[in-house]
Amino acid sequence: MNIIISGLGIIGGSYAKALKKYTDHHIIGINRSPEPLRQALECSAIDEIGSPEDLKRADMIILGTFPEAAVSFTEEYAHLIPKGCIVTDTCGIKSQICPRMVQLAKENGFTFVGVHPMAGKETNGFASSDADLFVGASCIVVPCGAEEAAVETVSRLAEKIGFGRVVYTTPEQHDRMIAFTSQIPHVLACAYVRSPCCPAHRGFSAGSYRDVSRVAHINEKLWAELFTENREALLSEIDELTKNLGEIRSALEKGDRQELEELLAKSRRIKEELGE
Amino acid sequence: MNIIISGLGIIGGSYAKALKKYTDHHIIGINRSPEPLRQALECSAIDEIGSPEDLKRADMIILGTFPEAAVSFTEEYAHLIPKGCIVTDTCGIKSQICPRMVQLAKENGFTFVGVHPMAGKETNGFASSDADLFVGASCIVVPCGAEEAAVETVSRLAEKIGFGRVVYTTPEQHDRMIAFTSQIPHVLACAYVRSPCCPAHRGFSAGSYRDVSRVAHINEKLWAELFTENREALLSEIDELTKNLGEIRSALEKGDRQELEELLAKSRRIKEELGE
Repeated sequence: MNIIISGLGIIGGSYAKALKKYTDHHIIGINRSPEPLRQALECSAIDEIGSPEDLKRADMIILGTFPEAAVSFTEEYAHLIPKGCIVTDTCGIKSQICPRMVQLAKENGFTFVGVHPMAGKETNGFASSDADLFVGASCIVVPCGAEEAAVETVSRLAEKIGFGRVVYTTPEQHDRMIAFTSQIPHVLACAYVRSPCCPAHRGFSAGSYRDVSRVAHINEKLWAELFTENREALLSEIDELTKNLGEIRSALEKGDRQELEELLAKSRRIKEELGE
Repeated sequence: MNIIISGLGIIGGSYAKALKKYTDHHIIGINRSPEPLRQALECSAIDEIGSPEDLKRADMIILGTFPEAAVSFTEEYAHLIPKGCIVTDTCGIKSQICPRMVQLAKENGFTFVGVHPMAGKETNGFASSDADLFVGASCIVVPCGAEEAAVETVSRLAEKIGFGRVVYTTPEQHDRMIAFTSQIPHVLACAYVRSPCCPAHRGFSAGSYRDVSRVAHINEKLWAELFTENREALLSEIDELTKNLGEIRSALEKGDRQELEELLAKSRRIKEELGE
């Protein structure tokens, strides 16, 4: 296949490197700024530097950009995308993206399959990309009514480049789950490091600090977009967390050690039932 | 030195194993239940199984038990502790422990030096202990007015068994910092996993879920005690966190993406200034 990757940041760049490492597909890179393209070509993460005109010969297009940019790129160049081409995204939110992509696909005769690779780092850009970023990770596929053959192609490719499992879901279920598994940890990390104690943590901290604060090294433009486009689900998870925090706070304030123990034991059992 | 370790859980057991691995001191274990003693002797983590009577020949005593148990053990057997013996604890809170230990030390002629090894796991007991648990970790020493020679002995021993750095502080400063670096992450983890989404996280989660939820596999008896004995500092950190969460929530609810970006950027800069 001719696979075009639009956006060579950490995710698009890792797709390029992984596709070159694990498959024989021909990889064409498109990017707003030239520098990542130059780097990608130099390290053979792509076979050639492309332009929107090259979309005409694409068998598959992987959109590695932010959500809004992925939709607007597709809107602008949909007329160039061949009939039968599979377009996939890599966006961290789906409800605000998928219906618009499905509509564009219908109007222009290509096929859209939503994808969210559950992998990343707290750093960004092509320099952080890695051929093995996806090894063992979960690939969430949001078929959005695409024909089975296209979903199958996307899933098999995910397995080939190292993903440990492929999970199928709807945009709504995806966004509810991601608010919990990914967005809340980022909100928490950002809230956590603003304690006046944070700048003096060295010598007093270990794994717990490191783990909770890690993703506070955030790309604020990307995450403000992701949060905003998943507003309802995220607000609901923030409220759930605040309520649960409040229960622990209240038991502590009352000095009710029995209640405190029971609350903590509930959480321990949830982890145990998950085998974690 | 004859070093007596009272309490062979993960921390006391790791002290025993580390002391045997990295020093030539003679290690005597004391424990409420016999099984960890048997295991420790079998794997040569201790040289002999002791009883409180053996405290009479101790040059150093390491209290590996929960905070209240450490104080009550010392109260009960203080009359057996030789003059000049150094007693150290391993407790995660200090303000509620140190003054009572200093008082017992004065009355009985031994020396107390508070210690908090910043290392642990989300599992417990002698089976989880590890000779290299402390390698590279921070050892917080709370001298509490002990003579310099004793503080020096404790610090050198910490370095010998692998600690990466020794930090000196007061009980109050220790407890304020620990509320932030260690207690809040445990509170957060327990609040987090109670979301209705948690049991279905598989396939939708990656490093962020794993990191925030890890310590929800909590020993509720230990942590309810630690939280209760650091009530004021922990309540204050919970309130700080709730306030910072609320700010992000409010920007999100208003749909003010600019404000959201600025809030996230503040957190990113805190991490960057720390070089993290």
